Amino acid sequence: MLIVKKFGGTSVADKERIFNVAKRCIEDYNKGNEVVVVLSAMGKMTDVLLQQAKDINPNASKRELDMLLTTGEQTSVALMAMAMDSLGVPAVSLNAFQVAMNTTANYGNARLKRIDTDRIKHELSNRRIVIVTGFQGINKYDDYTTLGRGGSDTTAVALAAALRADACEIYTDVDGVYTADPRIVKDARKINEITYDEMLELASLGAGVLHNRSVEMAKKYGVQLVVRSSLNNSEGTIVKEDAKLERMFVSGVACDRNTARIAVTKLEDKPGVAFKLFNHLANHNINVDIILQSVGREGTKDISFTVDQDVAKEAVQIIENHRTGSLKCESVDVEENVAKVSVVGAGMMSNPGVAAKMFEALYNANVNIKQICTSEIRVTVLIQDSDVDKAMNAVHDAFELSE
Amino acid sequence: MLIVKKFGGTSVADKERIFNVAKRCIEDYNKGNEVVVVLSAMGKMTDVLLQQAKDINPNASKRELDMLLTTGEQTSVALMAMAMDSLGVPAVSLNAFQVAMNTTANYGNARLKRIDTDRIKHELSNRRIVIVTGFQGINKYDDYTTLGRGGSDTTAVALAAALRADACEIYTDVDGVYTADPRIVKDARKINEITYDEMLELASLGAGVLHNRSVEMAKKYGVQLVVRSSLNNSEGTIVKEDAKLERMFVSGVACDRNTARIAVTKLEDKPGVAFKLFNHLANHNINVDIILQSVGREGTKDISFTVDQDVAKEAVQIIENHRTGSLKCESVDVEENVAKVSVVGAGMMSNPGVAAKMFEALYNANVNIKQICTSEIRVTVLIQDSDVDKAMNAVHDAFELSE
Repeated sequence: MLIVKKFGGTSVADKERIFNVAKRCIEDYNKGNEVVVVLSAMGKMTDVLLQQAKDINPNASKRELDMLLTTGEQTSVALMAMAMDSLGVPAVSLNAFQVAMNTTANYGNARLKRIDTDRIKHELSNRRIVIVTGFQGINKYDDYTTLGRGGSDTTAVALAAALRADACEIYTDVDGVYTADPRIVKDARKINEITYDEMLELASLGAGVLHNRSVEMAKKYGVQLVVRSSLNNSEGTIVKEDAKLERMFVSGVACDRNTARIAVTKLEDKPGVAFKLFNHLANHNINVDIILQSVGREGTKDISFTVDQDVAKEAVQIIENHRTGSLKCESVDVEENVAKVSVVGAGMMSNPGVAAKMFEALYNANVNIKQICTSEIRVTVLIQDSDVDKAMNAVHDAFELSE
Repeated sequence: MLIVKKFGGTSVADKERIFNVAKRCIEDYNKGNEVVVVLSAMGKMTDVLLQQAKDINPNASKRELDMLLTTGEQTSVALMAMAMDSLGVPAVSLNAFQVAMNTTANYGNARLKRIDTDRIKHELSNRRIVIVTGFQGINKYDDYTTLGRGGSDTTAVALAAALRADACEIYTDVDGVYTADPRIVKDARKINEITYDEMLELASLGAGVLHNRSVEMAKKYGVQLVVRSSLNNSEGTIVKEDAKLERMFVSGVACDRNTARIAVTKLEDKPGVAFKLFNHLANHNINVDIILQSVGREGTKDISFTVDQDVAKEAVQIIENHRTGSLKCESVDVEENVAKVSVVGAGMMSNPGVAAKMFEALYNANVNIKQICTSEIRVTVLIQDSDVDKAMNAVHDAFELSE
């Protein structure tokens, strides 16, 4: 078997954890498997490097930031190879240049295009464990790029696809995907199997276990994922195309507190206004989520939408900059103490009562809904941040997810 | 003009120094010059990384150590590019892969073979300052290598040769090459010009300003070097083939305290014994310096030699391991508190009285000489460590080097 195993930054944060990971990989190796390991930078190293850069130049170019950040994973893989070596198992570390991990040109948020597998296969054929830097690639200019948030997951999935691996295991600090965040909902239950689409909805809604792009890629190339804990041996959650239908309509409840709502009132009610608004934001790389447009008074309209909290101020500023031009309006307000709560499930499509059941549960729990957004397999509501725990538990109970 | 400027670790140890270096480079750039900057890892970063490796695996492979250490220079060059950028000057950082800095295969102590200049020339033609990682290369396996001690100097000289640079400036924390270490000899004088050969002797004798290999390479390719201070604007020392004959026979006095003497007594007096002894040491990469062989008693001989202090114990152990086999002897003793003091000068060749004058000065200063070694342009004596200051001053005075 060829197994790709990915470990995040907390799993390699110090010597003890590095050796833990080394031992887990060696177990698989000793059973005769070929083992490829993908690592992130150690613990908070990426944050430390970013701070160092900010201290020198708050507006550092993304090209140089990537040059700096990629030292993080290179440090991890070198130390891991040393650890395995000291345990008597031959290992070799490889960075994005050595693998030839080709990406698109854009620094800071590149996408993987093509992975050369020659070097990795050569090392595997010499019975070495191959340790690859996650999160990083090289572009056509021979420059380092990074893959953006959750990039190491994507590296692992892409490697698994390119190498036609038999398994792709994503290790995290939780032991799988849960029906809800166990810190909020006490009787949340671990999900044994889940479909790519459900995982995508959960990931984008802040379940925080797997990054969207890695799940998209896994779906595209049919790579079966296992999300497992690096701290224990429990079985984890399998993510695949046709997960067993053990479940009800709803497979999980997710929440995302990193949300702010921006309300723009009394915009001119003429064609192109919404386009201009969101185009300005898109030009600054600001992702917009739940959008609500309502008819205002006197030939105007109001538009409100949510963005990630950390870009809320920037988004407001961008709109303010155009108030005297293309975006005439009365006010631009931002509300930061809001949160999204969602139910996700492939069974939802054929069960129209899901949304109603969710709203009922929230009503009974006395939670006010500010905005609603639905997709085929998801219902999301925007609520007051302070209501999150109450809402999550009420919805989790209503769908009997702990059973 | 195309100028290659090399700055060591202390010159880029913190934000303030990074900006100092950036400004110096920008001065040259703003005069219309093409500027290539070679940097070492920041301050003590290499030591920190080595300690981190040692903590994981005290016998880490050199391949993985190089993979780890090369993150040091990559960090420096990325931060430097950010600093220059914030000062409004376009800059780009390049590592050994991006330049294509080809070396021999051996990790930890590789030699540069061939440098591709395409990428650097391309960046220069776009009027960018190009910042290159010193100390590192890549070998035929596409692995990182490092160039050993003083490797960044070698990188700078090699780049200057490959790019046919008009100047190669090595910045350090002293403002040039002195007739003796100013911390020991108060009236030591800065040398304005010195030949490659003299510099080679001084470098190998612990003058500590330039590394041997970089001087050898500069000599081979006729690269004129300037050793300057990164802290002030004084003119520094020029190292070239035909330095002005402003001098006397002797151009400087050097000392090397990192020395230990090993004495092996009563070795069998038969052919091949010396060969075996030094072959065993060479196999463990231990460099041997001053060798003295004397006829012992009863058909035996004694051999003593000096090595760097940090490998003395290992050297003794290697000899001990062969005492029952090829190296029968009575005792192996190590003396650690010894030091080498040397006078160096191209004028020496035609002036046979230099050695005698040095011995006289030491005799007058009551310094006991343990061992002597001479070359065409150098006389070295081994003395008690505690006598170094006295000896240096006496010799410096005798040759009137302060005048």
